[in-house]
Amino acid sequence: MITGQLAIETRELSIQTQGEEIDLIDLTPELREFLQATPITDGRLTIFVPGSTASIIATEYEPYLNQDTKRIIKELVPLGDNYQHDRIDNNAHSHLRTSIFGSEMTIPVVNSRLTTGTWQQICFADFDTRPRRRTLVVQLMGIAPTQE
Amino acid sequence: MITGQLAIETRELSIQTQGEEIDLIDLTPELREFLQATPITDGRLTIFVPGSTASIIATEYEPYLNQDTKRIIKELVPLGDNYQHDRIDNNAHSHLRTSIFGSEMTIPVVNSRLTTGTWQQICFADFDTRPRRRTLVVQLMGIAPTQE
Amino acid sequence: MITGQLAIETRELSIQTQGEEIDLIDLTPELREFLQATPITDGRLTIFVPGSTASIIATEYEPYLNQDTKRIIKELVPLGDNYQHDRIDNNAHSHLRTSIFGSEMTIPVVNSRLTTGTWQQICFADFDTRPRRRTLVVQLMGIAPTQE
Repeated sequence: MITGQLAIETRELSIQTQGEEIDLIDLTPELREFLQATPITDGRLTIFVPGSTASIIATEYEPYLNQDTKRIIKELVPLGDNYQHDRIDNNAHSHLRTSIFGSEMTIPVVNSRLTTGTWQQICFADFDTRPRRRTLVVQLMGIAPTQE
Repeated sequence: MITGQLAIETRELSIQTQGEEIDLIDLTPELREFLQATPITDGRLTIFVPGSTASIIATEYEPYLNQDTKRIIKELVPLGDNYQHDRIDNNAHSHLRTSIFGSEMTIPVVNSRLTTGTWQQICFADFDTRPRRRTLVVQLMGIAPTQE
Repeated sequence: MITGQLAIETRELSIQTQGEEIDLIDLTPELREFLQATPITDGRLTIFVPGSTASIIATEYEPYLNQDTKRIIKELVPLGDNYQHDRIDNNAHSHLRTSIFGSEMTIPVVNSRLTTGTWQQICFADFDTRPRRRTLVVQLMGIAPTQE
């Protein structure tokens, strides 16, 4: 067990999406940079999507699997399937996909490292149909060793 | 980065459901009230369902989309589809829906505010078939500025 | 509200799986043992899967329902359904199921107890096709009363 003063660092992460119905973007490099830059060494990282048309998933970021992931998302929630919400906005499918895949993820951090596996990347899954500048909330909460 | 003493506030949130197979209830007003009332200004809020027949989702709480959400849930996991669990209890579909949509959500809090988007509400999705008084666990963990 | 010094305890939980396409294992007894052994009494527990072929779900751990859960997972994401990823590795279905069911769960802890319901167990859902020794990350973050 480690003890200390609570430290919180909250950042906005800006992401450019392609808007091709489903866009998968690997966030792991940016998250690692954030962990390198902060004095907080142990705790947990939460990535939260402040919007209801995109999700965070942990998967193997690999071109073939990315195709499969997009395919299964389209099969589970087809585009434009006579949704009521499409009468006022054209993105019912984006909201429904978000409800299934979730809006946030929390990852334990030990010694300034994510506790993720080798073949596991933390990915932003954007379900919007147009290119967008997206802002994610990344918050690390934990212990920063006292500087003496 | 902000630092300080850890503060934790845990509350039970009592919710009356209609029990119409799927009930969607916007929790955002109650969560905002909780954030206004607590001295903890920065940290993160976790909403947890202590039960296995209901979920927390982040979506646009809008009547048409609510209809679409209920429809997709029923399509993904139909009611009474020859489930084994229905031999001992009549709610296999409620449990299965919960596994897909999840049991909790964590949201970063900055300056006493949820970091949610404008069209994003935090909703309780009840999958029970009868009206119930539900109790959710809402826990805020973070920093309360020292009063001097 | 309770306040105090931040304490973090992180452990690896080792799990033997059967590898029968979907294996459901109740983690609740091990999590309770962990809570009994640590001096941290209040806060929150995160269980994280460091890998992208298994999930954490909260459900009623009951043999009939376990059969239903396995069935619905297979129906949502069938095995070997012409996935692209299967050209390089035989487990596209495991990754896709993980994206739907999620990689982690956070549970509020009060007075050294999980705030789970009576019929709610925290379960490891392994989607791998072969028996494995799995390691989960269990991290408790909270307050340990000062010993005087």
